[in-house]
Amino acid sequence: MNQTILLKSRPEGTPQLSNFEFQKQDETLQISEGELLLETKYISVDPYLRGRMSDAKSYVPPFQLNEPISSGVVAKVIATKNDNFKEGDYVSGSLAWKTQQVSSGEGLTKVNADLAPLSAYLGVLGMTGLTAFLGLQEIGKPKAGETLLVSGAAGAVGSVVGQIGKILGLRVVGIAGTDEKGDMLKNDFGFDEVINYKTTEDMTQAIKTACPDGVDVYFDNVGGSISDSALFSINRFARLIICGAISVYNSTELPTGVSVQPFLVKNSALMQGFIVSNYAEKFPEAIKQLSEWVSKGELKYKETIVEGFENTPQAFIDLFSGKNKGKMIVKM
Amino acid sequence: MNQTILLKSRPEGTPQLSNFEFQKQDETLQISEGELLLETKYISVDPYLRGRMSDAKSYVPPFQLNEPISSGVVAKVIATKNDNFKEGDYVSGSLAWKTQQVSSGEGLTKVNADLAPLSAYLGVLGMTGLTAFLGLQEIGKPKAGETLLVSGAAGAVGSVVGQIGKILGLRVVGIAGTDEKGDMLKNDFGFDEVINYKTTEDMTQAIKTACPDGVDVYFDNVGGSISDSALFSINRFARLIICGAISVYNSTELPTGVSVQPFLVKNSALMQGFIVSNYAEKFPEAIKQLSEWVSKGELKYKETIVEGFENTPQAFIDLFSGKNKGKMIVKM
Repeated sequence: MNQTILLKSRPEGTPQLSNFEFQKQDETLQISEGELLLETKYISVDPYLRGRMSDAKSYVPPFQLNEPISSGVVAKVIATKNDNFKEGDYVSGSLAWKTQQVSSGEGLTKVNADLAPLSAYLGVLGMTGLTAFLGLQEIGKPKAGETLLVSGAAGAVGSVVGQIGKILGLRVVGIAGTDEKGDMLKNDFGFDEVINYKTTEDMTQAIKTACPDGVDVYFDNVGGSISDSALFSINRFARLIICGAISVYNSTELPTGVSVQPFLVKNSALMQGFIVSNYAEKFPEAIKQLSEWVSKGELKYKETIVEGFENTPQAFIDLFSGKNKGKMIVKM
Repeated sequence: MNQTILLKSRPEGTPQLSNFEFQKQDETLQISEGELLLETKYISVDPYLRGRMSDAKSYVPPFQLNEPISSGVVAKVIATKNDNFKEGDYVSGSLAWKTQQVSSGEGLTKVNADLAPLSAYLGVLGMTGLTAFLGLQEIGKPKAGETLLVSGAAGAVGSVVGQIGKILGLRVVGIAGTDEKGDMLKNDFGFDEVINYKTTEDMTQAIKTACPDGVDVYFDNVGGSISDSALFSINRFARLIICGAISVYNSTELPTGVSVQPFLVKNSALMQGFIVSNYAEKFPEAIKQLSEWVSKGELKYKETIVEGFENTPQAFIDLFSGKNKGKMIVKM
């Protein structure tokens, strides 16, 4: 029996389980010449999918109502009429939230289950790792000795960004939402300092204190008032990588805050939106570097694994209350 | 008799005449070996000086209380003990608001009164032209056929930016504060469209209408709500040059507005603060290009000339109510 998760209605504010619909199909899927039959093993749930569930605010074409949602998936080839893939191969790519599906093979990458756990290809060796590495490198242009501030530091991208910062010789300060996450970032991932934004009254002052030499690179996953607070510490020629704005994805009103323009002029600073797909030509080299760091044990990763296809919508919703440490993944 | 204008007190909000003090000196200025005696001919008043009059918000070291204010000045050498300058030479540089002053010659550029009117060396062939050209080129990276939106379009920098945009083959839309300024921009400077922000109720819609293909490059001289409105029209990979924020220079509270981060992520857009002095190595080449355009009549400029040293503070204050068309200059 094949199951699919559809977008039933567009979320208003925080997504609800009622925005999703499960569909069951009894017939066996058939493949034609050139096609593959895939069985889903792992599904990636990511904050950016929230944008695609809206009509107007989406970063990429929005999901259609009553159609399957798609995201990063690792699947096993269980039948094939395509010479490029054989039965038993594992692949990753952007696929539908289905337990089984037919694919032409286009856009799929074979992944090696012997080199790394399959779930890693959705995280540190997938879009997450690429986003962290390429965002930091291409926009952040970090130099050893500089200070890197990371918001959403305990999330999938943030925890990788901070570690790469340490590998490159930066002082790394993270912002996270629990002391437990802070301890993880400092003890397991080598962050120099972590600020718990939920227990800190004056974030502007806390950032100033944690970054006595100012902030040279700010890797921003959250937006909102936390990012406003960071502006007061940016240095001349600072680079602000705008990778995500999870704090406002569910806003039903237009988000407002401190005007950034005066800070940017005063500091000749740069702020740039980052979407990893714009850097596709750099993926192979980046994956090579990430794999090397992972195999040497220099780059660690944390996963929050939720079991059961039926729990995919809830896992996605839990991202917005920070229930995950590191990458949130659903395992079949 | 030599006169000086000092900063008497730091402005709160809009600068007032009472923030300035005039000082008269009767003794004749003496020069030592290597020095020049200069007589001021033209003084440039610029919005960015407001920043230097504050203590904390300044873009460059703040002016000291009870010390002379300085800005771009064109002066005549009336006595010299420096072999690099002879009597009768004209020079431009950052000099004090004094009718006469002694200089070592350091940082001064000789200017040719036969090639262009002396005042032009404070405008289109000075910092104004350099700011317009280098800001547009270095951050805006404009391509023929793209749409350029310019705020503060009738100001010194904005009116040059728009014309350079036209020379480079862009569609140019300006934002200005009177219909008279709009007519000047369209009829004299070749702007394709001008929006009068004072008579327009819905700036977001007006910008969308004037820029049917969206905005690729936004040259921002004003900040505030006008710049917020522009966000709704930016294209993928848009470049936003943050050159000034005249609308908030006099704010006594921290300026707030629409959060830019979601717009930047969604459009992979770039926003960068521009200060011309960071690009000093490009000045000679830029001045050469600007002079060529001016001599061919492709680049025109407007000046608002105020007569009398004693009117310098008022000319500066008048910038904030938009009393100038083009470059505001005080003539001795």
